[in-house]
Amino acid sequence: MDLKKVIRTIPNFPKDGIMFRDITTLLSNGEAFHYVINKLADRYRNSPVDLIAGIESRGFIFGAALAHQLQMGFVPIRKKGKLPGEVIQESYNLEYGSDSIEVHLGAIGQGQKVLLIDDLMATGGTIIAAHNLVIKTGGFVHEACFLVDLPEVGGGKKLKELGIPYYAMLEFDGE
Amino acid sequence: MDLKKVIRTIPNFPKDGIMFRDITTLLSNGEAFHYVINKLADRYRNSPVDLIAGIESRGFIFGAALAHQLQMGFVPIRKKGKLPGEVIQESYNLEYGSDSIEVHLGAIGQGQKVLLIDDLMATGGTIIAAHNLVIKTGGFVHEACFLVDLPEVGGGKKLKELGIPYYAMLEFDGE
Repeated sequence: MDLKKVIRTIPNFPKDGIMFRDITTLLSNGEAFHYVINKLADRYRNSPVDLIAGIESRGFIFGAALAHQLQMGFVPIRKKGKLPGEVIQESYNLEYGSDSIEVHLGAIGQGQKVLLIDDLMATGGTIIAAHNLVIKTGGFVHEACFLVDLPEVGGGKKLKELGIPYYAMLEFDGE
Repeated sequence: MDLKKVIRTIPNFPKDGIMFRDITTLLSNGEAFHYVINKLADRYRNSPVDLIAGIESRGFIFGAALAHQLQMGFVPIRKKGKLPGEVIQESYNLEYGSDSIEVHLGAIGQGQKVLLIDDLMATGGTIIAAHNLVIKTGGFVHEACFLVDLPEVGGGKKLKELGIPYYAMLEFDGE
């Protein structure tokens, strides 16, 4: 299945010059979404992964479906102030200002191996913060997994420099 | 499986007097999460449902896993300004002020039957807005589905008055 054909591109969102890769057209295609989750399940079925952590919000979609398929636990990594219990927090810089992500204290156990999931990697800022958050909990990142990588934006290069393993099912350049 | 035992209660969140039912402890239990999705799949496998729509953010978790299990398309209903394409919008009142939810134009086709999913029903405000949004697209709501209903808060009563069919796997009262 040519997944790139079911991902819609919206020019100039959220601002001029950005070619936004809209994965909602893949999600609404039941066959394509099912195919993606099964391919990811094949990749991780025999891996030493204890938990799947999805990054709010689109990472919840792929992460939860994969966790169900593999019968693993799912841990939401959320934006600041959304989780009701005690949390561990990690801040990261945005183009203007900064933001934070959080995970529940105790959601990831000491030494547990976590598969991080998000829909798309651009600058890598969020996934690096999520990696640091997992380390703060006492866990390890088995791999960071994306549906889409945008290699030209440079997130993958940063992850390689930091020694964070990652996998992306698809790549888009400026096409 | 006694699912109520794997849902944690956090008193006084997000404000005094609220007993917050925290479903993240169910999600991180791989066996419990898998059980929930399989039970929902049994309920809807032979229903005339064309699409599953999840309400941001926790509705994404249950909705996407169920859509994958049933090999159906998944449509995200998001908070205002999050979707990149042209949208249809529905506003609803909060305790103070109002909010809006949106769905992509074209994501739900004329006459399509939609299963709405969210984690929990309290006042019912969001799910009624989601129902109205589906009607605006030209689709129909097959059922609104929740993991948890809080009958004492009265959302279910409102849905019955409006003739919106709903199902909740679990109920919590003030216990």
